[in-house]
Amino acid sequence: MNAVLDQQDLSQYMSQLGEQAKQAATILAAAEPAQKNAALLAIAEALLENTDQIKQANAKDLQQGRQDGLDEAMLDRLELNDARIDGMVEGLHQVAALPDPVGEISEMNIRPSGIQLGKMRVPLGVIGIIYESRPNVTIDAAALCLKSGNATILRGGKEAIHSNQAITRCIQQGLQAVGLPQAAVQVINTTDRAAVGLLLTMNEFVDVIIPRGGKGLIERVSKEATIPVIKHLDGICHVYIDDQADLGKAYDVAVNSKTHRYGVCNAMETLLIAEAVAEQVLPDLNKAYRDQGVELRGCERCLEIDADMLKATGEDWDTEYLAPILSIRIVDDMQQAIEHINRHGSHHTDSMVSENYSRARTFLRAVDSSSVMINASTRFADGFEYGLGAEIGISTDKIHARGPVGLKGLTSQKYIVFGDGQIRQ
Amino acid sequence: MNAVLDQQDLSQYMSQLGEQAKQAATILAAAEPAQKNAALLAIAEALLENTDQIKQANAKDLQQGRQDGLDEAMLDRLELNDARIDGMVEGLHQVAALPDPVGEISEMNIRPSGIQLGKMRVPLGVIGIIYESRPNVTIDAAALCLKSGNATILRGGKEAIHSNQAITRCIQQGLQAVGLPQAAVQVINTTDRAAVGLLLTMNEFVDVIIPRGGKGLIERVSKEATIPVIKHLDGICHVYIDDQADLGKAYDVAVNSKTHRYGVCNAMETLLIAEAVAEQVLPDLNKAYRDQGVELRGCERCLEIDADMLKATGEDWDTEYLAPILSIRIVDDMQQAIEHINRHGSHHTDSMVSENYSRARTFLRAVDSSSVMINASTRFADGFEYGLGAEIGISTDKIHARGPVGLKGLTSQKYIVFGDGQIRQ
Repeated sequence: MNAVLDQQDLSQYMSQLGEQAKQAATILAAAEPAQKNAALLAIAEALLENTDQIKQANAKDLQQGRQDGLDEAMLDRLELNDARIDGMVEGLHQVAALPDPVGEISEMNIRPSGIQLGKMRVPLGVIGIIYESRPNVTIDAAALCLKSGNATILRGGKEAIHSNQAITRCIQQGLQAVGLPQAAVQVINTTDRAAVGLLLTMNEFVDVIIPRGGKGLIERVSKEATIPVIKHLDGICHVYIDDQADLGKAYDVAVNSKTHRYGVCNAMETLLIAEAVAEQVLPDLNKAYRDQGVELRGCERCLEIDADMLKATGEDWDTEYLAPILSIRIVDDMQQAIEHINRHGSHHTDSMVSENYSRARTFLRAVDSSSVMINASTRFADGFEYGLGAEIGISTDKIHARGPVGLKGLTSQKYIVFGDGQIRQ
Repeated sequence: MNAVLDQQDLSQYMSQLGEQAKQAATILAAAEPAQKNAALLAIAEALLENTDQIKQANAKDLQQGRQDGLDEAMLDRLELNDARIDGMVEGLHQVAALPDPVGEISEMNIRPSGIQLGKMRVPLGVIGIIYESRPNVTIDAAALCLKSGNATILRGGKEAIHSNQAITRCIQQGLQAVGLPQAAVQVINTTDRAAVGLLLTMNEFVDVIIPRGGKGLIERVSKEATIPVIKHLDGICHVYIDDQADLGKAYDVAVNSKTHRYGVCNAMETLLIAEAVAEQVLPDLNKAYRDQGVELRGCERCLEIDADMLKATGEDWDTEYLAPILSIRIVDDMQQAIEHINRHGSHHTDSMVSENYSRARTFLRAVDSSSVMINASTRFADGFEYGLGAEIGISTDKIHARGPVGLKGLTSQKYIVFGDGQIRQ
């Protein structure tokens, strides 16, 4: 396919994708839930039927990746084995089972003029998704966009091009089986980087861009895009243990937030402890972390309690480790904790452990993050745990969607008015 | 003030405004409704106390404007007379009386894990507002942003600089009187155009940009801004008279949508009529329009019924007249009307007159506009009529806010979680 493209004008090719997507978006917006769900299940079936071809295409990408010297972590993300293909199939079934967000009518109130005013949930239109070399994202993203009635233009990492093309054939097969336009989900069939630049500025065709991947990718996309971007930059999450905390809960939440998984954006990276309880809680916690191999970097006050900790530098407070490393700071009180979180955090997810009612109210209001928690692990900030069913990402933006973005985050609401011939006086 | 600024580094000045706004935003986000409302009323009082100074400053702007050859329409928008100052005072009282959107908690449901999850409404942060030479916008925008807990950086048209500075002094006086930071509302005190370019790219300080004014201004802002923009481009609104319309309602809605006011974005610009009823309704409607001095431009089929109409060109279907001009097209049926609206409209407000239940359902779903109406005048698409109390504009975007943007449109929702020590399994 690349060979064909070389002879085409790239910008013409991209405009064509855009135009086709826009046409497909109109059909998808009007599609019944049953048809969209049938498409999702037909895609799942196609994946199972074509497992061998997918694995062969993936083997090509893996071979090329090894030749190009990709590291083991990248090769691991690139790999599609039976378990991962089963995971994609399972994901499609889960999305099919979710309630359809499109067409929902709410808040229909009668105004003094006699008109009845409310809102109807509608798809955004055409969504451009830019991601790295994780081919399973192709299915996740396509499924969520399809279910929410949006057409999608996907651009995966160049290392996964064969895998993505094989998966796309399954998607096309599924769409065709139920009579939906194949342009409902399109994959950019060229590894030319200029295609991304074009996608980010096709305002006439694309309604929103969602980048998924590392910070470098997301910053590039945000900088270049003239289309609105729903983005997730990083997750520097905190737990603050208040001096009025239930210390049992504090222990559980602080250990779970760090050690449940390390490489995820909702893992705690900095633990804040009120000075009044630091001597009581730090030794037990540090033991738990050390037992799990977590490297501990503490502020000066921490080192007075536990001299075996490394000394945290200023940089630590601004770092997303995504690794078994934890920075710990002892603070005077909740107010200092809130200041630390709002200054050093990434507005992702922050939790306080406290039994104090008034402080809970203050913390919830004052912490400027997409998820603010009392007495719960930061690891709950997740589409599945929040009951959104699946997520396309966790937004650290304030505009449009904040926090885990599920099907509703891929929709908008328009006003609808029912009248009986009312006119404006 | 400009003289002082000339010696300053503009970019340093703008960063300082940004930093101050960000600090003020934190205080505003935590401010109680009573304090914000007291500020609004104190600003209203300051306007009344300083009416003479405001009118003197305005006289300077008007004089300069006349020297610079501004046309009468621009001078009219620039003028601040007693009635307009009273209007600003009245607007402040109205906004003070609205319910406070900040802190609202909703959808608190318990998840299977035991955590209780919901949403809290919070301000966006710092809002940059760029507008033309209508000084009353200074108060409208400041009032809505203040009430919704946001700090504001205002940049009005250069022709209104003295008026805006006089109004800003009243705002500062009001903020000071209730102990809120003066940086809660700041006006850019230079007419240097480069200041706008800086404002549009201060991502670290400004959360959203709202341009208010003509299409040229809005397009420039959208193109240059790297910060999210809530914008309203134009209003090419339609009424479609279905062949199953109640013709009395059709007459009322079609006349009111066009002739209630001409220069507003929610006025009808194109009337679509189903062929089956065109001969019945067109003559009466055309008479009504002609009686009010509306110029009529019809499609070929229209001219067969009423040869006195001008012939519409292709361009007419894509034009926002903002004037007593109306284009009329006879269409085969609702399907063709929907296609016309989605293709030529500006996704603002479109209305169908019909008694057919199934068609009403189809029209509501298929028309891709921020307000879609059945049997009601397009003129209802307005913050006051929708009960939002006041509006900062009508968004034709799909992201974040769609349609009239009131206080809620200037807020966002974060997730909040109440737990009892829950951890992720």
